[in-house]
Amino acid sequence: MSRATVLRGPVLVVGCGLLGTSVALALVRAGVDVHLRDRSDEHARIAASLGAGTTDRPTEVELVVVAVPPDAVGDVVVDALAEWPDAVVTDVASVKAAPLGRAEASGADLSRYVGGHPMAGSERSGPGAGTADLFLGRVWAVTPHPASRHRATETVFELAVTCGASAVLMDPADHDAAVARVSHLPHLLSVVTAAQLGDAPAEHLALAGQGLRDVTRIAESDPALWTQIVRGNAGPIASLLTAVRDDIDRLIDGLSAPGDALTQVLDRGRAGTSRLPGKHGAPERVDATVYVQVPDRPGELARLFVDAEESGVNIEDLRIDHDVARPVGVVEVGVRPDSADVLVASLSAKGWSAHR
Amino acid sequence: MSRATVLRGPVLVVGCGLLGTSVALALVRAGVDVHLRDRSDEHARIAASLGAGTTDRPTEVELVVVAVPPDAVGDVVVDALAEWPDAVVTDVASVKAAPLGRAEASGADLSRYVGGHPMAGSERSGPGAGTADLFLGRVWAVTPHPASRHRATETVFELAVTCGASAVLMDPADHDAAVARVSHLPHLLSVVTAAQLGDAPAEHLALAGQGLRDVTRIAESDPALWTQIVRGNAGPIASLLTAVRDDIDRLIDGLSAPGDALTQVLDRGRAGTSRLPGKHGAPERVDATVYVQVPDRPGELARLFVDAEESGVNIEDLRIDHDVARPVGVVEVGVRPDSADVLVASLSAKGWSAHR
Repeated sequence: MSRATVLRGPVLVVGCGLLGTSVALALVRAGVDVHLRDRSDEHARIAASLGAGTTDRPTEVELVVVAVPPDAVGDVVVDALAEWPDAVVTDVASVKAAPLGRAEASGADLSRYVGGHPMAGSERSGPGAGTADLFLGRVWAVTPHPASRHRATETVFELAVTCGASAVLMDPADHDAAVARVSHLPHLLSVVTAAQLGDAPAEHLALAGQGLRDVTRIAESDPALWTQIVRGNAGPIASLLTAVRDDIDRLIDGLSAPGDALTQVLDRGRAGTSRLPGKHGAPERVDATVYVQVPDRPGELARLFVDAEESGVNIEDLRIDHDVARPVGVVEVGVRPDSADVLVASLSAKGWSAHR
Repeated sequence: MSRATVLRGPVLVVGCGLLGTSVALALVRAGVDVHLRDRSDEHARIAASLGAGTTDRPTEVELVVVAVPPDAVGDVVVDALAEWPDAVVTDVASVKAAPLGRAEASGADLSRYVGGHPMAGSERSGPGAGTADLFLGRVWAVTPHPASRHRATETVFELAVTCGASAVLMDPADHDAAVARVSHLPHLLSVVTAAQLGDAPAEHLALAGQGLRDVTRIAESDPALWTQIVRGNAGPIASLLTAVRDDIDRLIDGLSAPGDALTQVLDRGRAGTSRLPGKHGAPERVDATVYVQVPDRPGELARLFVDAEESGVNIEDLRIDHDVARPVGVVEVGVRPDSADVLVASLSAKGWSAHR
């Protein structure tokens, strides 16, 4: 992708929720002139008061960023193309084929429209949750369709880069197949795991550990928003859910039957995790974990990090375990496997209780 | 539970893997005389060389801790009861009814047997992974059966407490129903999520974020061990998997149908997460998250923790995001909601890019 174009603005952001406000803040920080619009005047005013731009109507715009709920994207894109006959129009919705289809059905000329999807978010929502840093280092899928003009694709590419993201070009249907697998399916399986906790006796839940917390964390997200997201990508999700249902049938049968059908599913699961890209695009996850006990006193965590960094070992990943009834904190420090023994030795020498 | 008894030893640990070696190390540290046995002489020798006890056969023992794979527990318990006619016998397997049933089927007198299950583990295995700290602050389920003598229950309770755990009394069947829901079901749903990654195009996986990583982390565990664990608890797991399959059918139908069946499942998932006990037994998860950018330079993480702790805010939870292609690290700091703004202000004043 050439970078002959540079985003100059003005940019009109339509929809001042978390994503729209964050795009606006990032563009303002990059020196771009930003105009804000929201169905709710109050949301637009709040975003403006946070420094995300002005609520004045621009006389002309280079780019319209549509940041409204998924169900409304198609119509708002068509309206924006009509209102701004020279502007490129994009959106930031997490599904791409359905809004495109709705826009196409209107009969509008979509050559100036190219979709986009920054892989960033938060459990929080609304303009107050917006931040110029939201997209830093994130992947931003840019999804041109066959009728898109090259200039429009370049402009959306520039938007992503200006916001600090890494732009990746994808076909809209390909994007939707990808997020069905890496985002929507995990979300729904987190939900059905959590749904089984509803009628559990409270004393059973006392045995819950970090594994359950990890699996169910994303099930806390807003059900109304997620209903729109998964309805907008129903086809690819239904195929994956059907495949999962077949695996669940294999598990149910394998629980009581001889043979290795059960182990085969567990093997496929482990093999699947090994395909996840690691830090900096490494093909596999190669961290080793060092466990360190941290007394529940002020200053101990800071002291640990000073000591860990003095060991010269690079910390790749880090987590504090907060299991029920655990009086001491246990910090899990992820490091390269060849550094784990060095870190354990270095911390032990400084009086920490550390082990692999 | 009275604590009239005190664990004096000698204790015989049968099975020198991660759990057996860790129990032995914890007991040695508490001053208890520990003897080690393993089908593999080398494993027993390694455990002894790590300070976990002696491989000499004891002349008498107060307690036998059976720490062998789940499928072997019932038989080894029966053998231990016969070999040591005055000893209490326990085990540390993650299922309780199946080993008990197998021992009962032998016709042996099980009055000196009380099962146990420390809620602790590691992705690593073998004696070299053992550590005296493994059980600190963890819940240890103690599962007497109707024929258990009170003295035996007290001795196993003392074992858990001596290892640093919080002992919880549970009926064996109740324990198995609980772990089916909070451990085995989440494990299997993590596995089927990860199994769907196997035939995904690599470029689709580039869109993977932290949510997918959280959901699939535990799917990395040993398939052979987990086959034994879930087979040993087949009944409760099959019931839950059947309920999940019904929810998946509701999701598939709800994706393309009008009505709120889809949202209802999402609502039940969110409600389920709210039932998980929080830190120190709080009924709900109430942390707010503060996001802080950390440049990828040595010393920055330590500096962040010094600055965060100087703010006076108590850090409840902590995570480093390691998304693909993210050039700066983003640390997610979990704090009480009323402390989040204080932490953001304090860190911002010290030059950090921090936001809620």
